Amino acid sequence: MSDDDDRHREKMAKRKAVQDAEVASKTIEKGLLIVHTGPGKGKTTAALGLLLRALGRGWRVGVVQFVKGAWDTGEKHALKTFGAQVEWHALGEGFTWETQDKARDAAAARRAWAEAERLMADPSLRLLVLDELNIALRYEQLDLDAVVAALKARRPDLHVVVTGRNAKPALIEAADLVTEMGSVKHHFSAGVKAQEGIEF
Amino acid sequence: MSDDDDRHREKMAKRKAVQDAEVASKTIEKGLLIVHTGPGKGKTTAALGLLLRALGRGWRVGVVQFVKGAWDTGEKHALKTFGAQVEWHALGEGFTWETQDKARDAAAARRAWAEAERLMADPSLRLLVLDELNIALRYEQLDLDAVVAALKARRPDLHVVVTGRNAKPALIEAADLVTEMGSVKHHFSAGVKAQEGIEF
Repeated sequence: MSDDDDRHREKMAKRKAVQDAEVASKTIEKGLLIVHTGPGKGKTTAALGLLLRALGRGWRVGVVQFVKGAWDTGEKHALKTFGAQVEWHALGEGFTWETQDKARDAAAARRAWAEAERLMADPSLRLLVLDELNIALRYEQLDLDAVVAALKARRPDLHVVVTGRNAKPALIEAADLVTEMGSVKHHFSAGVKAQEGIEF
Repeated sequence: MSDDDDRHREKMAKRKAVQDAEVASKTIEKGLLIVHTGPGKGKTTAALGLLLRALGRGWRVGVVQFVKGAWDTGEKHALKTFGAQVEWHALGEGFTWETQDKARDAAAARRAWAEAERLMADPSLRLLVLDELNIALRYEQLDLDAVVAALKARRPDLHVVVTGRNAKPALIEAADLVTEMGSVKHHFSAGVKAQEGIEF
Protein backbone atom coordinates (compact mmCIF):
# COMPACT_ATOMS: atom_id res chain seq x y z
CA MET A 1 0.00 0.00 0.00
CA SER A 2 1.64 3.26 -1.15
CA ASP A 3 1.52 6.63 0.66
CA ASP A 4 -0.61 7.93 -2.19
CA ASP A 5 -3.17 5.16 -1.63
CA ASP A 6 -3.19 5.92 2.08
CA ARG A 7 -3.75 9.62 1.48
CA HIS A 8 -6.59 8.88 -0.96
CA ARG A 9 -8.24 6.54 1.55
CA GLU A 10 -7.96 9.07 4.36
CA LYS A 11 -9.38 11.88 2.20
CA MET A 12 -12.29 9.72 1.02
CA ALA A 13 -13.03 8.51 4.56
CA LYS A 14 -13.37 12.16 5.64
CA ARG A 15 -15.55 12.90 2.64
CA LYS A 16 -17.74 9.90 3.44
CA ALA A 17 -18.27 11.19 7.00
CA VAL A 18 -19.42 14.54 5.57
CA GLN A 19 -21.71 12.83 3.04
CA ASP A 20 -23.21 10.53 5.69
CA ALA A 21 -23.93 13.50 7.96
CA GLU A 22 -25.54 15.33 5.01
CA VAL A 23 -27.79 12.37 4.22
CA ALA A 24 -28.72 11.87 7.88
CA SER A 25 -29.73 15.55 8.17
CA LYS A 26 -32.43 15.12 5.52
CA THR A 27 -35.41 13.36 7.02
CA ILE A 28 -38.48 14.80 5.32
CA GLU A 29 -40.43 12.76 2.79
CA LYS A 30 -42.98 14.61 0.71
CA GLY A 31 -44.55 14.85 -2.67
CA LEU A 32 -42.47 17.35 -4.61
CA LEU A 33 -43.48 20.10 -6.98
CA ILE A 34 -40.77 19.87 -9.65
CA VAL A 35 -40.26 22.41 -12.45
CA HIS A 36 -38.14 21.83 -15.59
CA THR A 37 -37.64 25.10 -17.42
CA GLY A 38 -35.06 26.97 -19.52
CA PRO A 39 -34.27 27.15 -23.23
CA GLY A 40 -32.26 23.90 -23.42
CA LYS A 41 -33.29 20.37 -24.29
CA GLY A 42 -34.31 17.83 -21.66
CA LYS A 43 -37.32 19.38 -19.95
CA THR A 44 -39.90 16.89 -21.20
CA THR A 45 -37.32 14.10 -21.57
CA ALA A 46 -36.31 14.36 -17.90
CA ALA A 47 -40.02 14.20 -16.97
CA LEU A 48 -40.27 11.01 -19.06
CA GLY A 49 -37.27 9.64 -17.15
CA LEU A 50 -39.06 10.30 -13.85
CA LEU A 51 -42.11 8.47 -15.21
CA LEU A 52 -39.93 5.48 -16.09
CA ARG A 53 -38.38 5.43 -12.61
CA ALA A 54 -41.79 5.71 -10.92
CA LEU A 55 -43.24 2.97 -13.13
CA GLY A 56 -40.35 0.73 -12.08
CA ARG A 57 -41.49 1.26 -8.49
CA GLY A 58 -44.96 0.07 -9.41
CA TRP A 59 -46.57 3.51 -9.08
CA ARG A 60 -49.54 4.71 -11.10
CA VAL A 61 -48.62 7.85 -13.02
CA GLY A 62 -50.41 10.45 -15.11
CA VAL A 63 -49.42 12.71 -17.99
CA VAL A 64 -51.32 15.70 -19.35
CA GLN A 65 -49.83 17.30 -22.44
CA PHE A 66 -50.82 20.96 -22.88
CA VAL A 67 -49.30 21.49 -26.34
CA LYS A 68 -48.79 18.11 -27.97
CA GLY A 69 -52.01 16.62 -29.27
CA ALA A 70 -52.60 13.47 -31.26
CA TRP A 71 -48.96 13.33 -32.34
CA ASP A 72 -47.25 10.03 -32.89
CA THR A 73 -44.44 10.01 -30.33
CA GLY A 74 -42.04 7.31 -29.18
CA GLU A 75 -42.94 7.92 -25.56
CA LYS A 76 -46.65 7.34 -26.23
CA HIS A 77 -45.87 3.93 -27.74
CA ALA A 78 -43.41 2.99 -24.99
CA LEU A 79 -45.75 3.91 -22.14
CA LYS A 80 -48.49 1.68 -23.60
CA THR A 81 -46.30 -1.22 -22.44
CA PHE A 82 -47.22 -0.33 -18.85
CA GLY A 83 -50.98 -0.60 -19.47
CA ALA A 84 -53.22 0.76 -16.70
CA GLN A 85 -50.23 2.04 -14.71
CA VAL A 86 -50.27 5.11 -17.00
CA GLU A 87 -53.01 7.68 -17.62
CA TRP A 88 -52.01 9.54 -20.78
CA HIS A 89 -53.90 12.61 -21.97
CA ALA A 90 -52.54 14.54 -24.96
CA LEU A 91 -54.98 17.46 -24.96
CA GLY A 92 -52.99 20.11 -26.79
CA GLU A 93 -53.91 21.43 -30.23
CA GLY A 94 -50.36 22.11 -31.34
CA PHE A 95 -48.26 25.25 -31.37
CA THR A 96 -49.89 28.70 -31.41
CA TRP A 97 -48.55 29.26 -34.93
CA GLU A 98 -50.23 26.05 -36.09
CA THR A 99 -53.72 26.71 -34.69
CA GLN A 100 -53.54 30.50 -35.35
CA ASP A 101 -56.64 30.71 -33.14
CA LYS A 102 -56.36 32.23 -29.65
CA ALA A 103 -59.81 31.14 -28.45
CA ARG A 104 -59.19 27.57 -29.55
CA ASP A 105 -55.76 27.51 -27.79
CA ALA A 106 -57.34 28.78 -24.56
CA ALA A 107 -60.18 26.25 -24.72
CA ALA A 108 -57.65 23.41 -25.19
CA ALA A 109 -55.62 24.67 -22.20
CA ARG A 110 -58.76 24.76 -20.04
CA ARG A 111 -59.69 21.20 -21.04
CA ALA A 112 -56.15 20.02 -20.22
CA TRP A 113 -56.19 21.79 -16.85
CA ALA A 114 -59.57 20.22 -15.97
CA GLU A 115 -58.00 16.81 -16.66
CA ALA A 116 -55.00 17.75 -14.49
CA GLU A 117 -57.33 18.66 -11.62
CA ARG A 118 -59.18 15.36 -11.98
CA LEU A 119 -55.88 13.42 -11.88
CA MET A 120 -54.62 15.39 -8.84
CA ALA A 121 -57.79 14.26 -7.02
CA ASP A 122 -57.17 10.57 -7.87
CA PRO A 123 -55.58 9.01 -4.77
CA SER A 124 -54.15 6.06 -6.74
CA LEU A 125 -51.77 8.39 -8.61
CA ARG A 126 -48.27 9.08 -7.22
CA LEU A 127 -46.70 11.13 -10.01
CA LEU A 128 -48.30 13.58 -12.43
CA VAL A 129 -46.51 15.25 -15.35
CA LEU A 130 -48.03 18.49 -16.66
CA ASP A 131 -46.10 18.79 -19.90
CA GLU A 132 -45.75 22.35 -21.28
CA LEU A 133 -48.10 23.80 -18.66
CA ASN A 134 -45.64 26.73 -18.53
CA ILE A 135 -46.55 27.59 -22.12
CA ALA A 136 -50.27 27.78 -21.29
CA LEU A 137 -49.43 30.01 -18.30
CA ARG A 138 -47.14 32.23 -20.33
CA TYR A 139 -49.82 32.94 -22.94
CA GLU A 140 -52.33 33.57 -20.15
CA GLN A 141 -54.59 30.76 -21.31
CA LEU A 142 -55.10 29.82 -17.65
CA ASP A 143 -55.35 31.82 -14.43
CA LEU A 144 -51.88 31.72 -12.83
CA ASP A 145 -53.08 32.24 -9.24
CA ALA A 146 -55.65 29.45 -9.49
CA VAL A 147 -53.13 27.01 -11.02
CA VAL A 148 -50.43 27.74 -8.42
CA ALA A 149 -52.95 27.48 -5.56
CA ALA A 150 -54.17 24.08 -6.84
CA LEU A 151 -50.60 22.80 -7.20
CA LYS A 152 -49.73 23.94 -3.67
CA ALA A 153 -52.86 22.24 -2.33
CA ARG A 154 -51.87 18.87 -3.86
CA ARG A 155 -52.00 15.70 -1.73
CA PRO A 156 -48.86 15.34 0.45
CA ASP A 157 -47.81 12.14 -1.34
CA LEU A 158 -48.29 13.36 -4.90
CA HIS A 159 -45.26 14.43 -6.97
CA VAL A 160 -46.05 16.88 -9.78
CA VAL A 161 -43.66 17.78 -12.61
CA VAL A 162 -44.32 20.94 -14.65
CA THR A 163 -42.34 21.48 -17.86
CA GLY A 164 -41.87 24.29 -20.36
CA ARG A 165 -39.81 27.42 -20.98
CA ASN A 166 -40.29 30.66 -19.09
CA ALA A 167 -41.73 29.25 -15.87
CA LYS A 168 -43.60 31.99 -14.00
CA PRO A 169 -41.89 33.34 -10.84
CA ALA A 170 -44.95 32.43 -8.72
CA LEU A 171 -44.61 28.79 -9.82
CA ILE A 172 -40.86 28.75 -9.09
CA GLU A 173 -41.61 30.22 -5.67
CA ALA A 174 -44.10 27.40 -4.95
CA ALA A 175 -41.82 24.62 -6.22
CA ASP A 176 -39.51 22.31 -4.24
CA LEU A 177 -37.11 21.58 -7.08
CA VAL A 178 -36.42 23.76 -10.10
CA THR A 179 -33.96 22.87 -12.83
CA GLU A 180 -33.04 25.27 -15.62
CA MET A 181 -31.99 23.46 -18.79
CA GLY A 182 -29.44 25.64 -20.58
CA SER A 183 -28.46 25.17 -24.19
CA VAL A 184 -24.66 25.00 -24.56
CA LYS A 185 -24.69 23.62 -28.10
CA HIS A 186 -27.54 22.56 -30.36
CA HIS A 187 -27.44 20.32 -33.44
CA PHE A 188 -30.30 22.27 -35.08
CA SER A 189 -27.75 25.12 -35.56
CA ALA A 190 -25.65 22.71 -37.62
CA GLY A 191 -28.56 21.91 -39.95
CA VAL A 192 -29.46 18.60 -38.30
CA LYS A 193 -33.21 17.99 -38.32
CA ALA A 194 -35.48 16.75 -35.51
CA GLN A 195 -35.17 12.99 -35.64
CA GLU A 196 -37.56 10.17 -34.71
CA GLY A 197 -36.50 8.38 -31.53
CA ILE A 198 -34.62 11.44 -30.25
CA GLU A 199 -36.87 14.47 -30.55
CA PHE A 200 -40.22 12.62 -30.65
CA MET B 1 -64.34 37.56 -35.89
CA SER B 2 -62.85 40.54 -33.95
CA ASP B 3 -59.91 42.70 -35.05
CA ASP B 4 -57.88 41.16 -32.24
CA ASP B 5 -58.50 37.66 -33.62
CA ASP B 6 -57.49 38.84 -37.08
CA ARG B 7 -54.27 40.37 -35.78
CA HIS B 8 -53.43 37.17 -33.87
CA ARG B 9 -54.06 35.03 -36.93
CA GLU B 10 -51.93 37.26 -39.13
CA LYS B 11 -49.06 37.29 -36.60
CA MET B 12 -49.19 33.50 -36.19
CA ALA B 13 -49.34 32.94 -39.97
CA LYS B 14 -46.12 34.95 -40.30
CA ARG B 15 -44.55 33.01 -37.47
CA LYS B 16 -45.57 29.73 -39.08
CA ALA B 17 -43.85 30.78 -42.34
CA VAL B 18 -40.65 31.46 -40.36
CA GLN B 19 -40.93 28.13 -38.51
CA ASP B 20 -41.60 26.18 -41.70
CA ALA B 21 -38.55 27.75 -43.37
CA GLU B 22 -36.47 26.89 -40.30
CA VAL B 23 -37.58 23.25 -40.38
CA ALA B 24 -37.05 22.98 -44.15
CA SER B 25 -33.48 24.30 -43.77
CA LYS B 26 -32.51 21.34 -41.56
CA THR B 27 -32.02 18.28 -43.69
CA ILE B 28 -29.23 16.28 -42.08
CA GLU B 29 -29.98 13.04 -40.24
CA LYS B 30 -27.20 11.60 -38.11
CA GLY B 31 -26.46 9.79 -34.92
CA LEU B 32 -25.88 12.48 -32.31
CA LEU B 33 -23.33 12.73 -29.55
CA ILE B 34 -25.38 14.22 -26.71
CA VAL B 35 -23.95 15.48 -23.42
CA HIS B 36 -25.99 16.20 -20.25
CA THR B 37 -23.86 18.07 -17.75
CA GLY B 38 -24.08 20.74 -15.04
CA PRO B 39 -24.81 20.72 -11.31
CA GLY B 40 -28.61 20.46 -11.56
CA LYS B 41 -30.93 17.48 -11.58
CA GLY B 42 -32.09 15.79 -14.75
CA LYS B 43 -28.88 14.60 -16.42
CA THR B 44 -29.50 10.87 -15.99
CA THR B 45 -33.28 11.28 -15.94
CA ALA B 46 -33.28 12.99 -19.35
CA ALA B 47 -31.13 10.13 -20.67
CA LEU B 48 -33.75 7.70 -19.33
CA GLY B 49 -36.42 9.72 -21.15
CA LEU B 50 -34.48 9.35 -24.41
CA LEU B 51 -34.29 5.59 -23.79
CA LEU B 52 -38.06 5.47 -23.33
CA ARG B 53 -38.65 7.41 -26.56
CA ALA B 54 -36.23 5.17 -28.49
CA LEU B 55 -37.81 2.01 -27.06
CA GLY B 56 -41.19 3.28 -28.23
CA ARG B 57 -39.74 3.41 -31.75
CA GLY B 58 -38.73 -0.23 -31.45
CA TRP B 59 -34.99 0.47 -31.24
CA ARG B 60 -32.49 -1.65 -29.36
CA VAL B 61 -30.72 0.46 -26.74
CA GLY B 62 -27.81 0.07 -24.35
CA VAL B 63 -26.88 1.54 -20.98
CA VAL B 64 -23.51 1.44 -19.25
CA GLN B 65 -23.43 2.89 -15.75
CA PHE B 66 -19.96 4.06 -14.70
CA VAL B 67 -20.79 4.87 -11.06
CA LYS B 68 -23.97 3.05 -10.10
CA GLY B 69 -23.38 -0.63 -9.46
CA ALA B 70 -25.77 -3.29 -8.24
CA TRP B 71 -28.16 -0.68 -6.86
CA ASP B 72 -31.85 -1.27 -6.81
CA THR B 73 -33.28 1.48 -9.00
CA GLY B 74 -36.72 2.13 -10.42
CA GLU B 75 -35.33 2.50 -13.92
CA LYS B 76 -33.69 -0.93 -13.78
CA HIS B 77 -37.03 -2.55 -12.93
CA ALA B 78 -38.93 -0.54 -15.54
CA LEU B 79 -36.51 -1.31 -18.37
CA LYS B 80 -36.85 -5.07 -17.70
CA THR B 81 -40.34 -4.69 -19.17
CA PHE B 82 -38.71 -4.22 -22.59
CA GLY B 83 -36.76 -7.49 -22.44
CA ALA B 84 -34.08 -7.96 -25.08
CA GLN B 85 -34.60 -4.44 -26.45
CA VAL B 86 -32.36 -3.22 -23.59
CA GLU B 87 -28.75 -4.09 -22.76
CA TRP B 88 -28.19 -2.89 -19.18
CA HIS B 89 -24.73 -2.91 -17.62
CA ALA B 90 -24.30 -1.35 -14.18
CA LEU B 91 -20.53 -1.66 -13.83
CA GLY B 92 -19.75 1.05 -11.26
CA GLU B 93 -18.51 0.34 -7.78
CA GLY B 94 -20.19 3.36 -6.18
CA PHE B 95 -18.94 6.82 -5.29
CA THR B 96 -15.21 7.43 -4.72
CA TRP B 97 -15.94 8.07 -1.03
CA GLU B 98 -17.62 4.69 -0.74
CA THR B 99 -14.89 2.56 -2.31
CA GLN B 100 -12.02 4.69 -0.90
CA ASP B 101 -9.81 2.81 -3.35
CA LYS B 102 -8.38 4.59 -6.40
CA ALA B 103 -7.11 1.47 -8.15
CA ARG B 104 -10.47 -0.28 -7.75
CA ASP B 105 -12.32 2.80 -9.10
CA ALA B 106 -10.03 2.91 -12.15
CA ALA B 107 -10.39 -0.82 -12.81
CA ALA B 108 -14.19 -0.49 -12.67
CA ALA B 109 -14.08 2.45 -15.10
CA ARG B 110 -11.94 0.44 -17.53
CA ARG B 111 -14.35 -2.51 -17.39
CA ALA B 112 -17.29 -0.16 -18.03
CA TRP B 113 -15.49 1.47 -20.96
CA ALA B 114 -14.66 -1.92 -22.48
CA GLU B 115 -18.38 -2.74 -22.36
CA ALA B 116 -19.19 0.64 -23.94
CA GLU B 117 -16.78 -0.11 -26.82
CA ARG B 118 -18.37 -3.54 -27.32
CA LEU B 119 -21.84 -1.96 -27.47
CA MET B 120 -20.69 0.77 -29.89
CA ALA B 121 -19.56 -2.02 -32.23
CA ASP B 122 -22.95 -3.78 -32.08
CA PRO B 123 -24.82 -2.74 -35.27
CA SER B 124 -28.22 -3.66 -33.79
CA LEU B 125 -27.98 -0.84 -31.23
CA ARG B 126 -29.34 2.63 -32.11
CA LEU B 127 -28.92 4.48 -28.78
CA LEU B 128 -26.28 4.07 -26.09
CA VAL B 129 -26.30 5.84 -22.72
CA LEU B 130 -22.94 6.19 -20.95
CA ASP B 131 -24.17 7.24 -17.52
CA GLU B 132 -21.67 9.24 -15.42
CA LEU B 133 -18.86 8.71 -17.92
CA ASN B 134 -17.95 12.36 -17.18
CA ILE B 135 -17.09 11.37 -13.61
CA ALA B 136 -14.65 8.69 -14.77
CA LEU B 137 -13.05 11.22 -17.14
CA ARG B 138 -12.85 13.88 -14.46
CA TYR B 139 -10.97 11.59 -12.07
CA GLU B 140 -8.70 10.52 -14.93
CA GLN B 141 -9.72 6.89 -14.62
CA LEU B 142 -9.79 6.72 -18.42
CA ASP B 143 -7.73 8.30 -21.17
CA LEU B 144 -9.68 11.35 -22.38
CA ASP B 145 -8.19 11.42 -25.89
CA ALA B 146 -8.93 7.75 -26.50
CA VAL B 147 -12.51 8.07 -25.25
CA VAL B 148 -13.26 11.18 -27.34
CA ALA B 149 -11.67 9.58 -30.43
CA ALA B 150 -13.82 6.45 -30.01
CA LEU B 151 -16.98 8.52 -29.55
CA LYS B 152 -16.22 10.58 -32.66
CA ALA B 153 -15.60 7.38 -34.63
CA ARG B 154 -19.04 5.96 -33.74
CA ARG B 155 -21.25 4.51 -36.48
CA PRO B 156 -23.16 7.28 -38.34
CA ASP B 157 -26.54 5.94 -37.16
CA LEU B 158 -25.67 5.51 -33.47
CA HIS B 159 -26.81 8.11 -30.93
CA VAL B 160 -24.67 8.28 -27.77
CA VAL B 161 -25.66 10.12 -24.58
CA VAL B 162 -22.97 10.95 -22.01
CA THR B 163 -24.02 12.19 -18.56
CA GLY B 164 -22.32 13.62 -15.49
CA ARG B 165 -21.11 16.91 -14.05
CA ASN B 166 -18.01 18.73 -15.27
CA ALA B 167 -17.96 17.46 -18.85
CA LYS B 168 -14.48 17.90 -20.30
CA PRO B 169 -14.06 20.67 -22.93
CA ALA B 170 -12.77 18.14 -25.51
CA LEU B 171 -16.00 16.15 -25.13
CA ILE B 172 -18.16 19.28 -25.46
CA GLU B 173 -16.18 20.21 -28.55
CA ALA B 174 -16.90 16.78 -30.11
CA ALA B 175 -20.61 16.76 -29.18
CA ASP B 176 -23.59 17.73 -31.36
CA LEU B 177 -25.90 18.64 -28.49
CA VAL B 178 -24.88 19.80 -25.03
CA THR B 179 -27.32 20.70 -22.27
CA GLU B 180 -26.23 22.22 -18.97
CA MET B 181 -28.63 21.39 -16.14
CA GLY B 182 -28.58 24.30 -13.69
CA SER B 183 -29.93 24.05 -10.16
CA VAL B 184 -32.33 26.94 -9.45
CA LYS B 185 -33.82 25.42 -6.29
CA HIS B 186 -33.22 22.08 -4.62
CA HIS B 187 -35.39 20.28 -2.05
CA PHE B 188 -32.30 18.74 -0.35
CA SER B 189 -31.59 22.28 0.95
CA ALA B 190 -34.97 22.20 2.69
CA GLY B 191 -34.17 18.93 4.50
CA VAL B 192 -36.07 16.70 2.09
CA LYS B 193 -34.37 13.33 1.59
CA ALA B 194 -33.72 11.40 -1.62
CA GLN B 195 -36.93 9.50 -2.24
CA GLU B 196 -37.67 6.19 -3.99
CA GLY B 197 -39.41 6.67 -7.34
CA ILE B 198 -37.94 10.16 -7.77
CA GLU B 199 -34.20 10.00 -7.08
CA PHE B 200 -33.72 6.29 -7.71
